Amino acid sequence: MKARTAAAIAERPHSMDALFALAHEDMVAVDALIRRHMQSPVPVIPALAEHLIAGTAKRMRPLLTVAAARMAGARDDACLKLAAAVEFIHTATLLHDDVVDSSELRRGRVAAHLIWGAPSSVLVGDFLFARAFELMVGAGSMPALDILARASRVIAEGEVLQLTRAHDLDLGQELYLQIISAKTAELFAAAAEAGAVCAGAEPERRRALRTFGENLGIAFQLVDDVLDYSGDAEALGKNPGDDYREGKATLPLLLAMQRTGVAEREFWNRTVDRRDQTPADFDRARELMRQTGALQATLDLAHGYAERAKATLSVFPANPWRPALEALADVAVSRRT
Amino acid sequence: MKARTAAAIAERPHSMDALFALAHEDMVAVDALIRRHMQSPVPVIPALAEHLIAGTAKRMRPLLTVAAARMAGARDDACLKLAAAVEFIHTATLLHDDVVDSSELRRGRVAAHLIWGAPSSVLVGDFLFARAFELMVGAGSMPALDILARASRVIAEGEVLQLTRAHDLDLGQELYLQIISAKTAELFAAAAEAGAVCAGAEPERRRALRTFGENLGIAFQLVDDVLDYSGDAEALGKNPGDDYREGKATLPLLLAMQRTGVAEREFWNRTVDRRDQTPADFDRARELMRQTGALQATLDLAHGYAERAKATLSVFPANPWRPALEALADVAVSRRT
Repeated sequence: MKARTAAAIAERPHSMDALFALAHEDMVAVDALIRRHMQSPVPVIPALAEHLIAGTAKRMRPLLTVAAARMAGARDDACLKLAAAVEFIHTATLLHDDVVDSSELRRGRVAAHLIWGAPSSVLVGDFLFARAFELMVGAGSMPALDILARASRVIAEGEVLQLTRAHDLDLGQELYLQIISAKTAELFAAAAEAGAVCAGAEPERRRALRTFGENLGIAFQLVDDVLDYSGDAEALGKNPGDDYREGKATLPLLLAMQRTGVAEREFWNRTVDRRDQTPADFDRARELMRQTGALQATLDLAHGYAERAKATLSVFPANPWRPALEALADVAVSRRT
Repeated sequence: MKARTAAAIAERPHSMDALFALAHEDMVAVDALIRRHMQSPVPVIPALAEHLIAGTAKRMRPLLTVAAARMAGARDDACLKLAAAVEFIHTATLLHDDVVDSSELRRGRVAAHLIWGAPSSVLVGDFLFARAFELMVGAGSMPALDILARASRVIAEGEVLQLTRAHDLDLGQELYLQIISAKTAELFAAAAEAGAVCAGAEPERRRALRTFGENLGIAFQLVDDVLDYSGDAEALGKNPGDDYREGKATLPLLLAMQRTGVAEREFWNRTVDRRDQTPADFDRARELMRQTGALQATLDLAHGYAERAKATLSVFPANPWRPALEALADVAVSRRT
C-alpha cells in the first residue's frame, strides 16, 4: 500500500496536494464566503454566478492570497475575505472576456453569455466586481484595497491592449509579454501581495510574494497559450484552437510565424490575418508549431518564469508553505489542463 | 440692465446657477481629477472616455458629493476625489448600459459602442470602474468606500432586474420604483452620503443627505422617463422614443396602458409586447399618454419626491448650500433636457 502511494506520488511529482492540505480549512471558508456573497434577490445573478463558480474552477488566485497571508504570519481571517474578493474579480473578468471574445466554452461548461445573453454576463460581471470591493471593505485593509483596485485597472488596460492589438501579427514578444503581465500576471501578483499586506508582512517579504505571483502568472499564461494548441477540450474545459480561430497573436503563433518565414507566409496570412480557415488548417498550424519548436520554446520560457517565482521565496525561512508554493509553480508549467 | 437680469431669473426660477457658483472652484478641480485619471498608456481608453466625458455631461452626481461635503463642513479636498469617483462609476454604468440596450445616442453624441465596438465599451467601463476605486482609496475614507461599493452592487442588481423584467407589461408601479431606486437613485443617495461621511457629518445629517439624494434620484429618473416621450432629440442628447422602441416598461407606459384599458390592449400588445412598430405608432402612444394624463401623473409623482428631498434638508441650519440644493431638486423636475 505504501509502495503504491509512493509510486503515485512519483508519477505526479509536481502536485498541489501539499498546498491543498495546508489551505484546506481556509479554502472551505473562502468557498462559503464566495457562495454567500454571490447571493442576490435578483434570481439571474446567483444562477449565472453559480454556473461559472461551480464549474471546474481551480481557485488558484484565492489560494495564492491565503497561502501568502498564512506564510507571512496572518492569524485572523481577514485574508479570507480578500481571497474571495480576488476570485470575484477573476470571475468578473472571465464573464466580460467571454462576451468580448464570443467564447463558447468556459470551465467545462457552455459560456454564460450563450445561456443568459451577453447583457446579463456584462451586468453580473459588474455585480461580482462590486461585491469584490464590498468584501475588501469588510477585510478592512486600505493597502489591500489599493493593491486590488490598481490590479483591476491594470487588467482592464491589458484587456483593451489585447483587444486592439490581438490580430497584429507584427506584435513582438515584448508587447505580448506586456499584455499577459497586465491581463493575467497582475492579478496573481496582487492576490499574493494583498495576502502579504493583510498579514502585516515587512516590505521585503511583501515584494517577494508580489514577485512570486507575477512570475507565476506569466508562466501560467504562457502554458495556457501553449495548451490552446496542444490540449484537448475535455481536459481543458474550453475549446483548443480558440486563439487560432480568433487570430489571437499569442507567443506560440508569433514564434511559429517567425520561424517558418517566407515559406509559410501565405498560409499564416490567409488563416490568421484574414481568418479564412478550414478545420485542417488548425492541424497544420499545430504541426508547424511542433516542427519549429515554437511550443517547446514557449514552454521553456514558462519554466524560466516558474524558476524565478520559486527563487523569490528564499527570503522566507523554512516552513511548510514554502515547498507547497514551489510545487504550485511547478504545477503551473507541467499541467495538462 | 438690472431689470433684465431679474426678468431672466424670474423666467427660470429653478436654476442651478447658485449651486454652480458655490461649487465652481471645487468642480473645476473635480474636472481636472477626472481628466487626469482617465489617462492610460492604452490609446483607446482616453479616446473613448473623452468622447463620453466631454459630451453634455451634467455632472449632477459629483456636484451632489461636493455640495453634501461642503454643507456638512468638509474643509479638505478628499471629497473631490470621491466626486470624481462617483462620475466614473456613473460613466462606467452608462457605457455598459448602452451596450446592453444597444442605444444609439448618449450625451448628444453617437454612443461609444457604435464607434469603438461593444467589447471596447465593456472593457473601458471596467477601467473606469476600477479607476473609481483607486480614487476612493486616494480619498482615504473606508466608510465612503463602503457606501460606494455597496451602491455599485445595488446599481448592477437594479440593471439586471430591469433587464429581466424590462418587457413585463404587468410590472407594477411598486416594482418599477424598486428598479429605478436601485439603478438610479442609489448612486444619487450614495454620492450625497459619501460626501457627508467624508466631512465627518453626524449620523442625522448623514442620513438626511442620503435621503435627499435618494428622493432626488427617483424624481430625476421619473422625469427622464417622461422626457423619453415628451422631449426632443437635440435638447435631450439622446433619441426620444428609445424606451418605447425597446418596449421598456417605464411608468408613463405602465400608466397609459392601465388607463386605456381593453380599448387599446391590441395596440399596446402589438407595439410594446411584440415590438411591431411603425413611426406613427410612437406619435399615437404619446397622444394616448397625454389624453390619459399618464405623463402628468408621472410628473406629479416626481414633484412629490422632489418636495420630500427638499424637506430633508431642514436638519441643516440656514446656509448658502441649502437653497442651492433645494433649487437642484426643483430643476430635476422642471427640466426639459
